[in-house]
Amino acid sequence: MLEQMGAAAKAASYKLALLSSREKNRVLEKIADYLESQSQEILLANEQDLLEARRNGLSEAMLDRLALTPARLKGIADDVRQVCNLADPVGQVIDGGLLDSGLRLERRRVPLGVIGVIYEARPNVTVDVASLCLKTGNAAILRGGKETWRTNAATVKVIQQALEECGLPAGAVQAIESPDRALVNEMLRMDKYIDMLIPRGGAGLHKLCREQSTIPVITGGIGVCHIVVDDSAEIEPALKIIVNAKTQRPSTCNTVETLLVHQGIAGTFLPALSKQMAESGVTLHADANALALLQNGPANVVPVKAEQYDDEFLSLDLNVKIVTDLDDAIAHIREHGTQHSDAILTRTLRNADRFVNEVDSSAVYVNASTRFTDGGQFGLGAEVAVSTQKLHARGPMGLEALTTYKWIGFGDDTIRA
Amino acid sequence: MLEQMGAAAKAASYKLALLSSREKNRVLEKIADYLESQSQEILLANEQDLLEARRNGLSEAMLDRLALTPARLKGIADDVRQVCNLADPVGQVIDGGLLDSGLRLERRRVPLGVIGVIYEARPNVTVDVASLCLKTGNAAILRGGKETWRTNAATVKVIQQALEECGLPAGAVQAIESPDRALVNEMLRMDKYIDMLIPRGGAGLHKLCREQSTIPVITGGIGVCHIVVDDSAEIEPALKIIVNAKTQRPSTCNTVETLLVHQGIAGTFLPALSKQMAESGVTLHADANALALLQNGPANVVPVKAEQYDDEFLSLDLNVKIVTDLDDAIAHIREHGTQHSDAILTRTLRNADRFVNEVDSSAVYVNASTRFTDGGQFGLGAEVAVSTQKLHARGPMGLEALTTYKWIGFGDDTIRA
Repeated sequence: MLEQMGAAAKAASYKLALLSSREKNRVLEKIADYLESQSQEILLANEQDLLEARRNGLSEAMLDRLALTPARLKGIADDVRQVCNLADPVGQVIDGGLLDSGLRLERRRVPLGVIGVIYEARPNVTVDVASLCLKTGNAAILRGGKETWRTNAATVKVIQQALEECGLPAGAVQAIESPDRALVNEMLRMDKYIDMLIPRGGAGLHKLCREQSTIPVITGGIGVCHIVVDDSAEIEPALKIIVNAKTQRPSTCNTVETLLVHQGIAGTFLPALSKQMAESGVTLHADANALALLQNGPANVVPVKAEQYDDEFLSLDLNVKIVTDLDDAIAHIREHGTQHSDAILTRTLRNADRFVNEVDSSAVYVNASTRFTDGGQFGLGAEVAVSTQKLHARGPMGLEALTTYKWIGFGDDTIRA
Repeated sequence: MLEQMGAAAKAASYKLALLSSREKNRVLEKIADYLESQSQEILLANEQDLLEARRNGLSEAMLDRLALTPARLKGIADDVRQVCNLADPVGQVIDGGLLDSGLRLERRRVPLGVIGVIYEARPNVTVDVASLCLKTGNAAILRGGKETWRTNAATVKVIQQALEECGLPAGAVQAIESPDRALVNEMLRMDKYIDMLIPRGGAGLHKLCREQSTIPVITGGIGVCHIVVDDSAEIEPALKIIVNAKTQRPSTCNTVETLLVHQGIAGTFLPALSKQMAESGVTLHADANALALLQNGPANVVPVKAEQYDDEFLSLDLNVKIVTDLDDAIAHIREHGTQHSDAILTRTLRNADRFVNEVDSSAVYVNASTRFTDGGQFGLGAEVAVSTQKLHARGPMGLEALTTYKWIGFGDDTIRA
């Protein structure tokens, strides 16, 4: 079955690659319209998914993440309309010129071809990914969370209907309509058909893809992010940034998980931190030195466990560690970070420079919140994923990350000397 | 042992990333000088490798590929000096600006970190790869062909001596000094330390890396290249291009392997082709239709075997197939090509456009030889490899392909709203 899907996606990708921006936007608008006008079957499928999820004992919070309503579906349709407004990177000439040999060479941006996406429960991702792939002339094979497989299948059916009405093959957007996990392993080896694989999920999914996939994988989305409080930091602005980085949306990958506090400022900074964190409802996980300075403060504080430096809390919890100097802080980040987002709060130019140059993360910040690592915030218009690997795309991935390029050589019966 | 090498390479990469272009060139010049002044041990090791290779029955042609002489070593040293003249992409600001939030964002080009290279017998690759990695601030872990492991080890020793004299860690360039193949499998799973893996070898090595590696791999170098002879082609210029693409250096990956001849021109073109190929010493492997037109000509001609459409000859052999039209030609390339280099010879603008847009290869040509797919020819200065995958780098890879970027956000105590 997957073999057939792959061949259909590849065939569709050749057609999509030839479309103009106007033609692609026409499909997207039709998809948006159909998501509203044909919502009935999607909502019905979602009800069945929710029923089963409730039977399986999923939490109310989780059920809420899975649930679709007419209003949510309208929001999703509006997001598709937004994608129409984005600039289309396909066809852009990156560079070019006339070579000594007489060959006129240009490098032109083209779609990747077929993109595979494996994601977890939220049903809006189906439409989100499909619209970004179509906008860039790519076909997509989607494998959503098993909790919403009926919703995803119904959604893709509506998308396919819109595609066909625009004279395009249904193979352009396909979903694996089965909760069977073995299909994921099969998908990971379809390098004949799939050009890039994007896993959107937890560390386990990323590890599985890295180890099993024969398709190039973009991994990311895991953020053990740090903020270094340098000895020259100003306390009030530092606290403002930490509150933002920890509490604005604690469940995201760009949330700070560990504070590294210079020993020279710890004595004045940590009591102020304790007061602020108590107000913000944050529990501190402190190393021995920090604990001594925090234990009489108003904030909740517990001793840190060593392994907590390597994991995301994704909650109102924050590690606090005292470091002897900037070298110590950088060494900690190199050992425990995930190369996502790290910041320094400092008033010393040389330390800011050193941090920026020596910390090897997708995004590094000086006197700013780690929460900025986001496609929308960076002005990319859309966000396909946040990559923490170094090849192809790093940090927030916009539409350009869904493209590659080809070299085009125009000769006049030109041969190599 | 590999674990230790990986940790040393990662530590060295942090130091290399901070070097200026001048400092990196200083190391490269010292390496070039030492390759000449300390050639004795390298030549001695090479003699031992050659002795063993001869005992193992390697052909004279192969022995010649493995052999080093003082003159060849001088050539290798001069190549390193050439790398000094190349522009250093590291530190370049790709783009940036002031965001609405007040964050000043820039995207800066940085080294990848640690690059793993697995290659076959030629001993010059050791120096070639080491110098390109150092130029871009990357550490390298090299695994050369088992036939020259002593030569490679001696060469790396000289490189390390130059590194240390410049105050840099020997861990910046390391070789796996053992012909044990199990070490390759271990190397393929060192994603903790190695950021990118480049296999330089045959199809088997690329397949092994794609299937076993947990490190992002750049695959390529396999070229089943096509030339389409459209019905509007002019015969004399077409033959000139075909001779160049087939005979200039038949063992390379950008050599043409299959001609797809439009049925409308076959009757006049194939007799002329036969005459030219007889002169050029090329054996034709023809499909049934082409065979009928070629069998009375002067060129050697044999019936093509179906599987020959999918393999590189790398010799003076050429498939010839008659196609009904451009669609038929494009379909053949999509089925049998390796997305390396493909060309059309035509006088029809629309067919040239269609070919360029619809053939999904790293390099596509109109009225030019496929032999142009090369870093030097494309003006990239150096060539790390030729990628036939779509992520990160496509086609000839220059120094830029050994870099990634980081996002740097400068705030003024800036938080996300």
